[in-house]
Amino acid sequence: MTSPDLLPVTGAWQPGDDPGNRQFFTHATDRRFALDAGVALRDVVVAYETWGHLDADASNAVLLCHAWTGDSHAAGAAGRGHPTEGWWDDMVGPGRPVDTDRYFVVCANVLGGCQGSTGPASPHPDDGRPYGSRFPVVTIRDMVRSQARLMESLGIRRWLAVVGGSMGGMQALEWAVMYPRRVRSLVAVATCMQATAQQIAWGAIGRRAIRLDPKWRGGDYYEADPGDGPGEGLEIARMVAQVTFRSDNVFTDRFGRELADTARVGDTFDMWQRFEVERYLEHHGDKLVRRFDANSYLSIGKAMDLHDVARGRGSLERAMARVVAPTMSVGIWSDMLYPAYQQQQIHEAIATRGVPSEYVEIDSPHGHDAFLINGDQLAAPLERFLGRAAKADL
Amino acid sequence: MTSPDLLPVTGAWQPGDDPGNRQFFTHATDRRFALDAGVALRDVVVAYETWGHLDADASNAVLLCHAWTGDSHAAGAAGRGHPTEGWWDDMVGPGRPVDTDRYFVVCANVLGGCQGSTGPASPHPDDGRPYGSRFPVVTIRDMVRSQARLMESLGIRRWLAVVGGSMGGMQALEWAVMYPRRVRSLVAVATCMQATAQQIAWGAIGRRAIRLDPKWRGGDYYEADPGDGPGEGLEIARMVAQVTFRSDNVFTDRFGRELADTARVGDTFDMWQRFEVERYLEHHGDKLVRRFDANSYLSIGKAMDLHDVARGRGSLERAMARVVAPTMSVGIWSDMLYPAYQQQQIHEAIATRGVPSEYVEIDSPHGHDAFLINGDQLAAPLERFLGRAAKADL
Repeated sequence: MTSPDLLPVTGAWQPGDDPGNRQFFTHATDRRFALDAGVALRDVVVAYETWGHLDADASNAVLLCHAWTGDSHAAGAAGRGHPTEGWWDDMVGPGRPVDTDRYFVVCANVLGGCQGSTGPASPHPDDGRPYGSRFPVVTIRDMVRSQARLMESLGIRRWLAVVGGSMGGMQALEWAVMYPRRVRSLVAVATCMQATAQQIAWGAIGRRAIRLDPKWRGGDYYEADPGDGPGEGLEIARMVAQVTFRSDNVFTDRFGRELADTARVGDTFDMWQRFEVERYLEHHGDKLVRRFDANSYLSIGKAMDLHDVARGRGSLERAMARVVAPTMSVGIWSDMLYPAYQQQQIHEAIATRGVPSEYVEIDSPHGHDAFLINGDQLAAPLERFLGRAAKADL
Repeated sequence: MTSPDLLPVTGAWQPGDDPGNRQFFTHATDRRFALDAGVALRDVVVAYETWGHLDADASNAVLLCHAWTGDSHAAGAAGRGHPTEGWWDDMVGPGRPVDTDRYFVVCANVLGGCQGSTGPASPHPDDGRPYGSRFPVVTIRDMVRSQARLMESLGIRRWLAVVGGSMGGMQALEWAVMYPRRVRSLVAVATCMQATAQQIAWGAIGRRAIRLDPKWRGGDYYEADPGDGPGEGLEIARMVAQVTFRSDNVFTDRFGRELADTARVGDTFDMWQRFEVERYLEHHGDKLVRRFDANSYLSIGKAMDLHDVARGRGSLERAMARVVAPTMSVGIWSDMLYPAYQQQQIHEAIATRGVPSEYVEIDSPHGHDAFLINGDQLAAPLERFLGRAAKADL
């Protein structure tokens, strides 16, 4: 344990830590796992959690795909092995929209992540030391391919639904394009077919902030003392993201121009006197540093920027023509990061081929994070959609 | 001269550099210049430029207020003493909307700036060494008070118009609130009455990036070797701002998902292989580092975050009730940083008191920077508004 005042060098889950509800599956033990980058990994670990029971014909399995800083802990309390409550806890459980009394629900930490699956903080099989700068660039497709190995190991031939928001939606889309026969239905929330220049711009700024932190050490910082890791760079990268995840109006309502550090409230005119919104952003950054890994942040961010369902497939139209899964595409009107037009484009690309598709818009002021915040609005459409998929009524 | 490959430690104009078209006015030579921060400066230099001729009754003077990284060089070519073309060159000149055949046009580098006016890179009068970390926090009101000293020295009792965009608009608004009898008319473009939480958030992230740069050295970096200044922190801060100055759609049209560094174009899957939008942002950051000062960036950014016409005036309503200048408030529909509702609020706050006010919206996809890019749309309304002000027809 590090002192509560010293930021950990990495917030990654490490072998030997309490597994919590994680299960582990290792693939590429006999042959290498080829990546889009043209290199390969071996002994690739997938940390995952499951809820509910797989039925006899393996027809009730739902895959949840997590977002940038998510992990396999989609549902359940925080506790030993799980620094945070499940990221979709209000949506997943008995009687909830993703009803674990009906469905066998699977959520895997992505390749490149830091909560049990192989990523930059994991031990390299050659020497047992963290990959660090040796970890290759991975793509959304690599993540999906790794999940496909897990799927096979679980005895599932087709997902009843693949469901994801933000980067999770990128994975869900790639599932439907890469493995059309393995996806019975698709739910893509607040996501896009191709990362746009503006999305890449935000990602690039975060990368630069981490690289600027001298404690990042080119990616090989794992042996540093507590408090001597790249926490400040990661915090700034997270601050950038956090603004794009929310909205102008909600920031105004919640923070306005209030000052933080009220013990110093006379110091309005100090350069480093913080406004409340700064305190909030730094708090979120600090929280992330305690549960995440800077190199994983880079790795997953780059995967998102490289996300392009058209890459190597001739055109966007030809790529999307592979999708045969009935689809629910969900947008959020206040989302500045993945604006609603992008989810409408997904819906239109699928519907235009005659595949059943619906577009649902969440009427929330909370911006991109509304897919995590406004479960109230997503609950009914998602429950209905999954129910129809289960009855083959789509 | 530094090598073209080595970034300068500061891009500030320094005493001894070619003055170009600058003129200099020094105030607070006999008594100190009190700042909102509760401290005072002395020997405060204002670098300014003028165009045209002041008429006999000093009734044709127009004050232009510049934005964050602007300077006194509102019009004219780049050249000796002026690293860039005038920031509003298409709007200011003979026969142009701000017609220098008719008006005496003044533009002063702001207090805290780095292009000739007193700022953090300026010599401290006590020891001749740069202020650096000794430079106090300044406010928009301090900038305006310093401009008011210049005004008096020029023999001007009332501006025909005070005109500004972005931070320039903040100054223009404060002019109308602080000195209502000295402002005949007001043009406030893409600005706000109070910095919002989201605007502060972007500013805070830029501050943190500069502070993270070990070469910033707590603000005392001026004696570093070329290439050893806080250029990387400033570059990242500028990258954040640059995204907020533009728009999603234009980034998509202009950059899409193109890769830069075409000599390395095979390296799509390299963490530091850049997309074209990254190259563009880094290019803008690099350009800024060559002509600006990191501490000035902090200083002016903080002044913008502290901008609140209501501060110390009871309420926003009471502050805005001081404005008696007929006003043109200009918004840009695609502006994500200063959304158009903020300029509508300015218009409404003034019009509701019975003061003549009009709201004009620039129909441009270019975002906040449209006030610099789309002179074509601002030209006619601005020319007409100034003409009516000159004829006392407002």
